[in-house]
Amino acid sequence: MSIFEELESEVRSYSRGWPVVFDRAQGSWLHDEGGKPYLDFFAGAGALNYGHNNPKLKAALIDYIQRDGVTHALDMFTVAKRDFLETFKEKILGPRELDYKVVFPGPGGANAVEAALKLARKVTGKESVINFTNAFHGMTLGALSVTGNSMKRGGAGVPLVHATPMPYDRYFDGAMPDFMYFEKLLEDSGSGLNEPAAVIVEGVQGEGGINAARLDWLRGLSDLCERHGILLILDDVQMGCGRTGAFFSFEDAGIKPDMVCLSKSISGYGIPMALTLIKPELDVWEPGEHNGTFRGISPAFVTATESLRTYWSDDELEKSTKAKGERIAAAFKDIVEAHPDANLFAKGRGLARGIEFADGDLAGAVCKAAFERGLLMETSGPNGEVMKLLPPLTLTDDELTQGLSIIDESITTVLSK
Amino acid sequence: MSIFEELESEVRSYSRGWPVVFDRAQGSWLHDEGGKPYLDFFAGAGALNYGHNNPKLKAALIDYIQRDGVTHALDMFTVAKRDFLETFKEKILGPRELDYKVVFPGPGGANAVEAALKLARKVTGKESVINFTNAFHGMTLGALSVTGNSMKRGGAGVPLVHATPMPYDRYFDGAMPDFMYFEKLLEDSGSGLNEPAAVIVEGVQGEGGINAARLDWLRGLSDLCERHGILLILDDVQMGCGRTGAFFSFEDAGIKPDMVCLSKSISGYGIPMALTLIKPELDVWEPGEHNGTFRGISPAFVTATESLRTYWSDDELEKSTKAKGERIAAAFKDIVEAHPDANLFAKGRGLARGIEFADGDLAGAVCKAAFERGLLMETSGPNGEVMKLLPPLTLTDDELTQGLSIIDESITTVLSK
Amino acid sequence: MSIFEELESEVRSYSRGWPVVFDRAQGSWLHDEGGKPYLDFFAGAGALNYGHNNPKLKAALIDYIQRDGVTHALDMFTVAKRDFLETFKEKILGPRELDYKVVFPGPGGANAVEAALKLARKVTGKESVINFTNAFHGMTLGALSVTGNSMKRGGAGVPLVHATPMPYDRYFDGAMPDFMYFEKLLEDSGSGLNEPAAVIVEGVQGEGGINAARLDWLRGLSDLCERHGILLILDDVQMGCGRTGAFFSFEDAGIKPDMVCLSKSISGYGIPMALTLIKPELDVWEPGEHNGTFRGISPAFVTATESLRTYWSDDELEKSTKAKGERIAAAFKDIVEAHPDANLFAKGRGLARGIEFADGDLAGAVCKAAFERGLLMETSGPNGEVMKLLPPLTLTDDELTQGLSIIDESITTVLSK
Amino acid sequence: MSIFEELESEVRSYSRGWPVVFDRAQGSWLHDEGGKPYLDFFAGAGALNYGHNNPKLKAALIDYIQRDGVTHALDMFTVAKRDFLETFKEKILGPRELDYKVVFPGPGGANAVEAALKLARKVTGKESVINFTNAFHGMTLGALSVTGNSMKRGGAGVPLVHATPMPYDRYFDGAMPDFMYFEKLLEDSGSGLNEPAAVIVEGVQGEGGINAARLDWLRGLSDLCERHGILLILDDVQMGCGRTGAFFSFEDAGIKPDMVCLSKSISGYGIPMALTLIKPELDVWEPGEHNGTFRGISPAFVTATESLRTYWSDDELEKSTKAKGERIAAAFKDIVEAHPDANLFAKGRGLARGIEFADGDLAGAVCKAAFERGLLMETSGPNGEVMKLLPPLTLTDDELTQGLSIIDESITTVLSK
Repeated sequence: MSIFEELESEVRSYSRGWPVVFDRAQGSWLHDEGGKPYLDFFAGAGALNYGHNNPKLKAALIDYIQRDGVTHALDMFTVAKRDFLETFKEKILGPRELDYKVVFPGPGGANAVEAALKLARKVTGKESVINFTNAFHGMTLGALSVTGNSMKRGGAGVPLVHATPMPYDRYFDGAMPDFMYFEKLLEDSGSGLNEPAAVIVEGVQGEGGINAARLDWLRGLSDLCERHGILLILDDVQMGCGRTGAFFSFEDAGIKPDMVCLSKSISGYGIPMALTLIKPELDVWEPGEHNGTFRGISPAFVTATESLRTYWSDDELEKSTKAKGERIAAAFKDIVEAHPDANLFAKGRGLARGIEFADGDLAGAVCKAAFERGLLMETSGPNGEVMKLLPPLTLTDDELTQGLSIIDESITTVLSK
Repeated sequence: MSIFEELESEVRSYSRGWPVVFDRAQGSWLHDEGGKPYLDFFAGAGALNYGHNNPKLKAALIDYIQRDGVTHALDMFTVAKRDFLETFKEKILGPRELDYKVVFPGPGGANAVEAALKLARKVTGKESVINFTNAFHGMTLGALSVTGNSMKRGGAGVPLVHATPMPYDRYFDGAMPDFMYFEKLLEDSGSGLNEPAAVIVEGVQGEGGINAARLDWLRGLSDLCERHGILLILDDVQMGCGRTGAFFSFEDAGIKPDMVCLSKSISGYGIPMALTLIKPELDVWEPGEHNGTFRGISPAFVTATESLRTYWSDDELEKSTKAKGERIAAAFKDIVEAHPDANLFAKGRGLARGIEFADGDLAGAVCKAAFERGLLMETSGPNGEVMKLLPPLTLTDDELTQGLSIIDESITTVLSK
Repeated sequence: MSIFEELESEVRSYSRGWPVVFDRAQGSWLHDEGGKPYLDFFAGAGALNYGHNNPKLKAALIDYIQRDGVTHALDMFTVAKRDFLETFKEKILGPRELDYKVVFPGPGGANAVEAALKLARKVTGKESVINFTNAFHGMTLGALSVTGNSMKRGGAGVPLVHATPMPYDRYFDGAMPDFMYFEKLLEDSGSGLNEPAAVIVEGVQGEGGINAARLDWLRGLSDLCERHGILLILDDVQMGCGRTGAFFSFEDAGIKPDMVCLSKSISGYGIPMALTLIKPELDVWEPGEHNGTFRGISPAFVTATESLRTYWSDDELEKSTKAKGERIAAAFKDIVEAHPDANLFAKGRGLARGIEFADGDLAGAVCKAAFERGLLMETSGPNGEVMKLLPPLTLTDDELTQGLSIIDESITTVLSK
Repeated sequence: MSIFEELESEVRSYSRGWPVVFDRAQGSWLHDEGGKPYLDFFAGAGALNYGHNNPKLKAALIDYIQRDGVTHALDMFTVAKRDFLETFKEKILGPRELDYKVVFPGPGGANAVEAALKLARKVTGKESVINFTNAFHGMTLGALSVTGNSMKRGGAGVPLVHATPMPYDRYFDGAMPDFMYFEKLLEDSGSGLNEPAAVIVEGVQGEGGINAARLDWLRGLSDLCERHGILLILDDVQMGCGRTGAFFSFEDAGIKPDMVCLSKSISGYGIPMALTLIKPELDVWEPGEHNGTFRGISPAFVTATESLRTYWSDDELEKSTKAKGERIAAAFKDIVEAHPDANLFAKGRGLARGIEFADGDLAGAVCKAAFERGLLMETSGPNGEVMKLLPPLTLTDDELTQGLSIIDESITTVLSK
């Protein structure tokens, strides 16, 4: 392991909790170089909704590479991009009556966020943005300025100044009506709140602690934005592509955000790809005003297209995700009730699930215990106090049973210490 | 072509100059869906130094995918990453006596720049950065703030404020001694220049118009930074990986920057990947202080490793690049002399070459004429006045001959209008 | 009046509501050039607490000028400054057990605020500041950034970014516990709130609409700041010097802010002067790190000293101010009850009093009606919906009776239209 | 002296070099409380161009106070303001064919600068401003951001970001053509220079080291601004009101800036007052968009009016100032030549004069030696290396002789150590 310690920066993090060297992967499983299998309930932090090296996607990918399909094409027109756009329209936008144009903002989720923020400011002529407590939107300067985590913000080295945080859903456990504070500041011309260009929000906050906004709250936010002429940016980088059941995390709320950020599982195979969806009337860019080298990675288009065809031609995956989510919810309910003194709290929607512990040490200890039992899980939340589950949507019932059993055992072990 | 017009944002740019749909690619050639071949002298804006779908890299890639090597691994330890780090040390860092630690900052060049800027500010406690006239460092907010192009800057929608531009080499055609202005501002405590954390510079400015800094100038800059305790960040995203001959564009100057940004051709195959190299004493990150989803794309590590083994085990590619660069220089000299009234100006180093025209319309017309003759080239420079060549380093002498001939013909046609 | 229209900028404001040319003034009265008297219930927006051209202060002032006492002395030592400092210590700081050092920050209230903000940032190494909804702290860039009024903020021409507004006392009419929001954001490391260097607050918000914070709320704020290591800056520019009864508006709350800003009535005679009081441990300035031309205006020291001796050697003025305040409160209660359909709302503390109308047009009409009857009053609040009274503290009972009668009549006239 | 040490903040500066307590003042003389006279060649840092307690002004002032002329009038219309405006038009604007409207921006020079910057940004919709090396414009956040001194800038506690410094006249001793750098950055759309709303400049830099711009340079700057549509703000706070001979420091250059900032000597008697003069077409303020408590100090209007009548009805003062300036220049030439090894350098224009020493210690020692001989002088320049003379314009020839003799003696004493 010495080359990692010798050469890789101290900024590395996941390898600290999982100090083995991984080699192969298939479906819900990662294998270390000694061949030991790990059940992966982290799934690339949501980048592997269809599992590792999904066979259907793999076949399409290899076929494309074999036939020397163009790999890197900047933002030129390609057959691979055309297939993707047509499929995205047919399988995703059309059936949901969503009228969006597609920006290829660069390879990662932060690029999708940066492009959305830039466009919102350009369209409105305003610079300020509203974000939410415990939001996570990325590490580049624009995305970081709307991210909540103070340690990560501190890394910026410049004041992060163009955003004002508002309370996410249930931030005060109902002690304060939804949006009362936000709306009052907007309506009061003396409030000192800079008039916002946009609101940026996640349907479920993953990094923030698996905080699932109620659908009513999302609708309320959408209404508020419409009433005040504020653009609504829905960051579905982690919660999109079916993580909560429906393709978009906001679908069940019946809202239509002005912009949507997608990345992580959009390519389906773990290859970097991102999209910023924008309402057509917002498409006021100059050609090349936002650009980048990795906006047309055809292998990603190919696996993305294949994933849409395979999983989004019917509602089977959506139903299965919701059903498995309910299974986890039920299992977590049992766990919470089994440890009444531990003040556990089950959270989440679809296959984004978590249990909140009293502190980050406990949650960390549970993840460590699970790792020792062959299960990969991570913590989230401002103090790492939430044990977080983001399994592949394609995991089998048996794998889910197995994982839940390890979780149960790990929690019991940790709490009984 | 209608799905592109219907769904893809107006921000698209390259497809406007090359209105065909590409499908396959091999070596120096792109083929449109009708099978028409195009000689590619743009090479993914420098992301394809080893050509399209390089056979050796392709074989390693397919092999890795076939055997279900882990694809997406965040920043976990993997066999693929270990191979890459060991090879990078053996083939690149070691022979050059460069002592760097490696940050995986995210998938693109802008991530490499953002990470460098963040770290420079954290280490120094200062927020200001010096950039250079006509610099290009990326489109995310931090990277955009050190980029020169006013149209792209205007897209930010917030004031870009933490950088001060200094004149790049030969900005005044020798009318002003190197660094006179910069050094005076630094030494004068009343100058009003905020004390800089870092200087960020490209060895050759590609987007800025193929401006190749003299090696003396780079040495002077490195000295100045050392004297004043300013960190030197060398953005080798476009000019690294052999574009100027040596692996790093700064090698021939004999300097050792404090940080180096790599991306584009580092994976060798066009798959998104980026590195920020930092001197060990600068490695003061907290674990996870900078993170991201796409920092461990194993297929990119695999092709990167293969490219290093194939092309950087000896100095053959370096020599060939320089030799071909000289061939272009000679050909350009002839072209310039053949059109004495046109005030053409040949520029560049290695296989980053350009001819400056009197205005952007002429340069654009030349690129259009070349496209009609089956050659892909782009313009650069603040007004698009520079015809830019970034061919694959692996192009054959025949391909170079063919390309130069098209260029010659295109220029003659345009200038004789 | 043509020279004003010809030469004075459109930014002028008070002259629009009171379109006469004033010439002389005495006590509570202003006289226009035709000799018509106006009862002044605005008192220089709080700069004339001891009335116009107060005879005792006038005598001291003329004596000083006559004997060629130094007028302008930068921050040199002068006899006039020594007298002021000794008297300020003896009459104000000592009896209240306040241990402050005195910064002479420049001639106006905004200078006092700018100096406080600079010092708070220097001491803490943090840049962010918490201000309150409807705050007013001045028009220079630093002070404006913590001011609420959107029209005035819009005048900055740059984003005002280093402050986050929190709800002032009773901003939600009790729907939300005091400081719940603020404290939660501070305690949650993922809230996205930049860690604040300081909180800046007014004891009573004058420009914001005569919002008088409850003493409990001020105590709560002071406690919160102490718990979280945030500096508390009390801007007493308008509400200090006895406006609420006690010399400082925060005295009755029993708190000791880390910094206090004074100006307006501190010179007593309307001559520009300002102070920033700072706890001794905060006095970390370098000599000259903050400076300015008008920090040592001796005539202002002379009248300031005389005003302290005359009015703050005993508690007579304080008692009288509170008593007159209660008279106004009682009269306003009658007025509110006499117009039950008008939804009037009486506000204020001491001799800072107001009546809130349903909208700014009504409040403006009342002020206009009062002006026609020889009474000067202004509106405040985000929409100008509050009729504001800031009479000289030295007004007589008869003058108060006369003023209240005009107000009663003006309101009745306007509301009966 | 203990009350000063006990109560006054460490930020005090002038009192450190002149550790006596001043009491009375007349003309060119300050007297300490023991009666010892000091010849004042600092004159309130330029605030006392007509001397201390000028008898004509004093008479008008006492008369006004005696008759209870309104003292503090916000921005109401007053007889005193009318007199001032009429006189300013008649004596200053009219004869110079200057068409300006007058903003009363607040009591000090920084207010004049803040108002100019705000208006320039509002008018142009741009946020960036060009300032010059070694500029001084004030201590409030907006003014500080265009000030050069790094110690003072460091006091801001937030990054000062909306200005870019350009080289002042002769910054490179002729090694670089005037404005070459500035103009190139403006013309190059890829330079990375944010498009500026305005340029702010001093006719002579006082704090920066008595750097007197050549008239040609000022004309060149004015031309450049006009060509590029940039507003030119002339900060004449210290160098206006006759300091260089003419009323405005820019008059001799024949230019007409878009805005002019005046303060310091505008009231003539040391009472705080400031003006921002703006071309009529720039007068786009909303009423009250910029305001403040101390914008209508009538005693300052009275002494200002009297000073204009007394000194600007003919060209006597202007001629005398220039003549005395020449006397100093000649005396300084002798001094410089008398100490050939000391590398002295004489600087300045009109009655703003200086001698540059090799370092700040020498200049400081000279000022100390002069103080011991009864002469008040200060240093300026980034390292305090310039001995600075700003005597009252009204000083007599004898006083000048006496002062020059002390200076000569002090320099000789210091240099011979």
